[in-house]
Parts: sequence; C-alpha cells; structure tokens
Amino acid sequence: MMFVIVQDSKQRMIESAAVLMRERGVEATSLSEVLAHSGAPRGSIYHHFPGGKAQLIEEATRYAGDFTAAGLGQALATDDPVAGIKAFSAMWIRILERSDYMSGCPVVAATLEGEGSPGARAAAGAAFESWERSITEALAPHLEEPSRAHSVATLVITAIEGAVVLARAQRSSAPLERVADELERLLAGALGRR
Amino acid sequence: MMFVIVQDSKQRMIESAAVLMRERGVEATSLSEVLAHSGAPRGSIYHHFPGGKAQLIEEATRYAGDFTAAGLGQALATDDPVAGIKAFSAMWIRILERSDYMSGCPVVAATLEGEGSPGARAAAGAAFESWERSITEALAPHLEEPSRAHSVATLVITAIEGAVVLARAQRSSAPLERVADELERLLAGALGRR
Repeated sequence: MMFVIVQDSKQRMIESAAVLMRERGVEATSLSEVLAHSGAPRGSIYHHFPGGKAQLIEEATRYAGDFTAAGLGQALATDDPVAGIKAFSAMWIRILERSDYMSGCPVVAATLEGEGSPGARAAAGAAFESWERSITEALAPHLEEPSRAHSVATLVITAIEGAVVLARAQRSSAPLERVADELERLLAGALGRR
Repeated sequence: MMFVIVQDSKQRMIESAAVLMRERGVEATSLSEVLAHSGAPRGSIYHHFPGGKAQLIEEATRYAGDFTAAGLGQALATDDPVAGIKAFSAMWIRILERSDYMSGCPVVAATLEGEGSPGARAAAGAAFESWERSITEALAPHLEEPSRAHSVATLVITAIEGAVVLARAQRSSAPLERVADELERLLAGALGRR
C-alpha cells in the first residue's frame, strides 16, 4: 500500500513539473513550485529524484513525450491519416484556448535550455523522433511516394510545434488553424486525393 | 562623442542578451552575464534600461525580430520566392552547425517565458507577424491562389522555427533539411511550377 502512495507522489511531481515547464520554461520551474503544485512533501524530491532538478526535468520531458505520443497514436489509429493529423492540430488548439494561450509544449521548453539541461534535451530529441516515427509509419502505406513519409512527418511535427509557439506569442489560435489547413491540403496531395 | 559610446554600450548589451537568450532561454540569461558578455559597466544597466531585465529582454526580442526580418527581406529580394525561402532555411542550417546546435531563435525563447515576460512575448508576437507579412507579400503575386499566401507564409515560418527546435534537440540539421525539401516542393506546387 505504501508503495502505491510513494509511486503516486513521484508521478504527481513529474506531472506538475511538465505543467509548469509548458507554461514558463524549465529554468523558471523551481523545485519548491513543483512541490507546492504537486502537494508532495519536501523530503520526497531527493528520495524520488536523487539527481535533483536535472533528473526531475528529464523524467518530466520523457513523460510529456510519451503522453503526446499516446495522443498522436490515438489520433492516427484510424485508416485516415489526414483526419488523424487534423485531430492532433485540434487537440493543440483546445489546449491553447482553454489555457488562454499559457500552455505550450514541455518538450520544446526542455530543448530551449540547451547546455543547461543536456539530459532533458536528449529526452526531447528522442520524443520528437518517436512522434516523427508514428506519423511516418501511419503515412507510408498511403503515400504516392512512400520515400517522402519521413520528410512529411517532420514537416507535420515542426509546423504544429512552431504554430503552438506563434499562437502563444500572438495569443490567438489563428496561426495553428492556417497551418492545419495547409497540412491538410499537403497531405491530401501526397496521398493522391487531389 | 560620449553619446556615440553610450549608444554603443546599450546596443552591445541588447546584442549580448539576444545571444544568451538563443542559447539558454530568457530565465537563465542573467543581467550579470549580459554585462560580462557585452563588457558594459555595471551601472549602465539601469541607465539604459530603467525597466531592468524585463526591458532589456523586450528590446533584445525586438532587435532579434528586426535582425531576422532583414535577413528574410534580403533572401526574398529576388523574383524567386522559392529560392528565397531555401536561402532562409540554409541560413538557419549554418547558424545551427556553426554553433554545434547551441544557438536557436531568441524570439522563440522570448515566447516560452509566457507570463514571466509579457512585454517580450508581445514583441515576439509582433516579430513573427512581420516575418509572416514579408513572406505573404513576396508570395502573393506568384501564387495560383493568392488567398493562400498568408497560410503558406505561416506554414513556412512555423515549420522552420519548429525544425530549429528539433535540430537542437537531435543535434543534427537533418530535420531542417527535410523541412526545406518539403517546403520547396509545396511552394513550387503553389506557384504552379509542377
């Protein structure tokens, strides 16, 4: 029973770190704010994360990467990748609008710390790669030129991630809507539907 | 003469702030590191930036936005917007490779601080809008459907900015190269060249 509670407080801290990172970046996400947000006791940080903040941020980045990968997997679990990518863009529009454009992507935040958190940056690189791979695999069987699957997948991820940044800066989901329209058109073309 | 020197130290501080922001984000860019990097005397911060760090970061974001707008304007100053966008992607690949993937975009960094620096976030929103406008104006006369110019411009900016993030995380310019290929193909199609 104790084991379950301990695991739960670790997971709560990871989720709190991801929430704070997506709103304010890694550097401004302090351990005391993670504790306050998660309700975990102070002593639990070095119990669960002997590597301190660097380890917590790295695990939060991995968690956020897996969480988004699951959402993407679900969106792509139909036989219609165009609809799947549209659903993925729509998910981001909801996140932005519900948070009044405060919530971005924690994996992008982890990247921007650069040399300040190399473990988190590596976890971010692996997360992006797993998302690209999901889309590549979903697209390849449908594309007129299957060799384009990887580059189209990279375009989808980069354009949506970039649009989330523009949407936050401009406090509007319009950039993401324009990007979703262009991606839908590009995918329809690559799939030979036009 | 004194006036020139004073202006120069203000400008050096703004440029140093932009360099540090692009490598490590806004929060980790301290005033003392800006002073050390720029060689400006300590007293000059509140002389040039009475609003302190918030003002310095906002001015650095505006400077970075104008600097990139100038590069983009130059890249698009031919009658071939496809070649112009390719040159813009190539500029980013050079920045990433020369810095060993340490240098990203200071305007993206300014956005990610969110509520922590609303002035910088607004300057970032305006910078992105000016880049979108440059590309929209360069594309519109050439597009088969001129009404797509704005959405294509947003796709170009978001995909390149997103690809700079992926390139840093994965320590490789390959994502930017894949994105540049797909954008070239999309632009050629939108311009009726295929």
